[in-house]
Amino acid sequence: MPLKTPAGYAPLDIASIPAFLSRQPDIAARLGGQPGDWQVSEIGDGNLNLVFLVRGPAGGVCVKQALPYVRLVGESWPMPLQRAFFEHECLKEHGRHVGTLLPTVYHYEPALYAIVMELLEPHIIMRRGMIQGIVYPRFADDIARYLARSLFFTSDLALSAAAKKRRMAVFCDNTELCKITEDLIFTDPYMIHDRNRWTRPQLDGIAAAFRADTELKLAVSRLKLRFLTSAEALIHGDLHTGSIMITESDTKVIDPEFAFFGPMGFDIGAVLGNLLMNFFSQDGHASPESPRAAYQEWVLATIAEVWVKFREEFLALWRGQATGDAYPGALFADARGKTCLEEERQAYMDRLLADSLGFAAAKTIRRILGLAHNIDFEWIADPERRALCETRALFLARDMMVNTPRYPRIAAVVDAARQVRQEVTGSGGTAGWTRTTDLRSHNPTL
Amino acid sequence: MPLKTPAGYAPLDIASIPAFLSRQPDIAARLGGQPGDWQVSEIGDGNLNLVFLVRGPAGGVCVKQALPYVRLVGESWPMPLQRAFFEHECLKEHGRHVGTLLPTVYHYEPALYAIVMELLEPHIIMRRGMIQGIVYPRFADDIARYLARSLFFTSDLALSAAAKKRRMAVFCDNTELCKITEDLIFTDPYMIHDRNRWTRPQLDGIAAAFRADTELKLAVSRLKLRFLTSAEALIHGDLHTGSIMITESDTKVIDPEFAFFGPMGFDIGAVLGNLLMNFFSQDGHASPESPRAAYQEWVLATIAEVWVKFREEFLALWRGQATGDAYPGALFADARGKTCLEEERQAYMDRLLADSLGFAAAKTIRRILGLAHNIDFEWIADPERRALCETRALFLARDMMVNTPRYPRIAAVVDAARQVRQEVTGSGGTAGWTRTTDLRSHNPTL
Repeated sequence: MPLKTPAGYAPLDIASIPAFLSRQPDIAARLGGQPGDWQVSEIGDGNLNLVFLVRGPAGGVCVKQALPYVRLVGESWPMPLQRAFFEHECLKEHGRHVGTLLPTVYHYEPALYAIVMELLEPHIIMRRGMIQGIVYPRFADDIARYLARSLFFTSDLALSAAAKKRRMAVFCDNTELCKITEDLIFTDPYMIHDRNRWTRPQLDGIAAAFRADTELKLAVSRLKLRFLTSAEALIHGDLHTGSIMITESDTKVIDPEFAFFGPMGFDIGAVLGNLLMNFFSQDGHASPESPRAAYQEWVLATIAEVWVKFREEFLALWRGQATGDAYPGALFADARGKTCLEEERQAYMDRLLADSLGFAAAKTIRRILGLAHNIDFEWIADPERRALCETRALFLARDMMVNTPRYPRIAAVVDAARQVRQEVTGSGGTAGWTRTTDLRSHNPTL
Repeated sequence: MPLKTPAGYAPLDIASIPAFLSRQPDIAARLGGQPGDWQVSEIGDGNLNLVFLVRGPAGGVCVKQALPYVRLVGESWPMPLQRAFFEHECLKEHGRHVGTLLPTVYHYEPALYAIVMELLEPHIIMRRGMIQGIVYPRFADDIARYLARSLFFTSDLALSAAAKKRRMAVFCDNTELCKITEDLIFTDPYMIHDRNRWTRPQLDGIAAAFRADTELKLAVSRLKLRFLTSAEALIHGDLHTGSIMITESDTKVIDPEFAFFGPMGFDIGAVLGNLLMNFFSQDGHASPESPRAAYQEWVLATIAEVWVKFREEFLALWRGQATGDAYPGALFADARGKTCLEEERQAYMDRLLADSLGFAAAKTIRRILGLAHNIDFEWIADPERRALCETRALFLARDMMVNTPRYPRIAAVVDAARQVRQEVTGSGGTAGWTRTTDLRSHNPTL
């Protein structure tokens, strides 16, 4: 029995797309020619949605439509159509602040839960590029700018409380997608659950040890509580490297359907965690023809750069454009006030790094022991090699989450990643993280 | 020019009340007799609203109606009528969990922004009772239960995220009343502002010193940020002793028009701060005929009891009724998990006490240096005596806000209050809080 959908909704298909788009004169003009001239293809790699690429004589567009269920799973996993509404709302709001880093939206069709937007060419999904070892020289700058501006300008540092709460009320309804995060990231990987999977039997021991690791489960539960209560800014909510379309000269963030007012560190951690996972995965893709040592160093440098540039840009915005209700400038106008407020800003950023590393760790663990995995690891055919890469990522993640104060600066993360890669040489079991104490003593920056 | 109001709205008056109430058969029956038999009086001490008491042959009701402005100030300070809606929503929601501690609501009239509720007799405003030195033996138990149950059952410990966000979306609109708090409590008292006033000239020095005290201003700004971002539970939002109607055997919490999803510590701090202010004010009301030493000890014991009982009851609810999405029980089901989760609960309560003391301090400072003052202090006719009481309260508040870790347990607050009262013997100036270091060395519980 098909799922019930609202009147006026029907899934689009290759045949119906031209008639739909021809009703929008701007889009018809952008495509050029006649609807019969337009070439439509459906790309099959969306987990949740229908995505069509449409090309005409003059140009192209992309159509993304929500289905009433998870595309990857089928009708047995219903999913609210409204996610398209929230995606569009977030694209609009973030678009005000980081316009060139998002696809341009041409049209939103409420009844169809469909967004017509810029066709990104020749962009590819960043995760796929990184698996191939492609260096993206603009990425750190771009994503740091996206994070700094989208988070700052939707926070209480830039907005009046009333303006923020008005936006927040809208996103309070995006509960089903938040619940996916709450369950799949913060809960399921730490218990026995049908939806979990991992590289077996190599990681059986680690998976069992994590499920028995009370310290870790308390740490992830504290992060979950922050996710549930901390309405700091309008966050993307799913900012992994699969939500980034990229070329060597351009970066676009896509797919903010999980958007809501949540903790800033969740978005920052998503970026950092996915870069760390790619770093560890490279040993599974390296071959004599495609050595990856230099690329791994680029990934590590990028991790540091993302944070450092984000921090700089966010601080610059706070110093120059703090029009919000938090930390009223009038209270800190004298010389001592200015000095102390700047110290407070630095301390704020330190706390934000700690949050981000916790969330980065949570994102890492769920991608190895939970339902949704990354192709960074999944495409390593040899399970032994894959398990070794995954073990290293888990090892670091566990330490970052439980012993976050050991990572007061991003350099400590980079050093630890390098060290874990060198010192953890066997996969599975629990040998890995009994060595976390060593990590500290070996780490010169701590 | 009168403020614009929605169609159907008109302020009630003594003449129109009987016709209004007679349209509700339940209420007419409760009053008994005929509308002509009902005696209506308007009580003039509401700061914001119209409040009518109506008595009939069989019983009475109270009618509270919002005006489109602040009653105390007049039409120059507009105030949204919707506050009556939020008050009613909060009474409904909290009423599910602490029914007997709130007035029963008989009727809500949306177009008139009017609530018809239980006439509380022979209750008086608790603040007035405390100024007279009346002991309320049930108060600590009752308010601890109100706090524990209203906060727990609207938090992520009891609610699913979706259920909580549904409620939260409603209260996101209550921004004008939140802004009063943001401005009057967290901002204005720390700067030069027309709305501020204090006992002059005695407190001129303290007021100036607070305005120049960067550490204090950072501390209050951190609390403001928590107020802006931390959606922990549906809080009352204005829980001072003027929002409590009481007898020696019954306690009712009224006036939750400032309600929204905010930090739990704000409500707890409101109670503790107002009790502390009353403690310090007693030296201004004491006389040979009415000594207050024993009453002050009762107030201090009550402060300790409120926190200790709140903590016990909240913990008991968490242990027994944690049906929410936070800290999933399934992750902590084994013996070690149970032990560690209990430790986590204790640590959570310690953090909540620290939050509460910060908010208690903010509530105290605003009542002495900001717009809205307490009659606890205001009714001390001699400005020298009043200023000394106020200085002591400010002294403790400043230390609690800036040096919160010095107060890891409620006993430390009680000891410090006693000590400040003994050691601070002159009002005004800055001599008071240069002695904060002594406070620590003298405090046996630290």
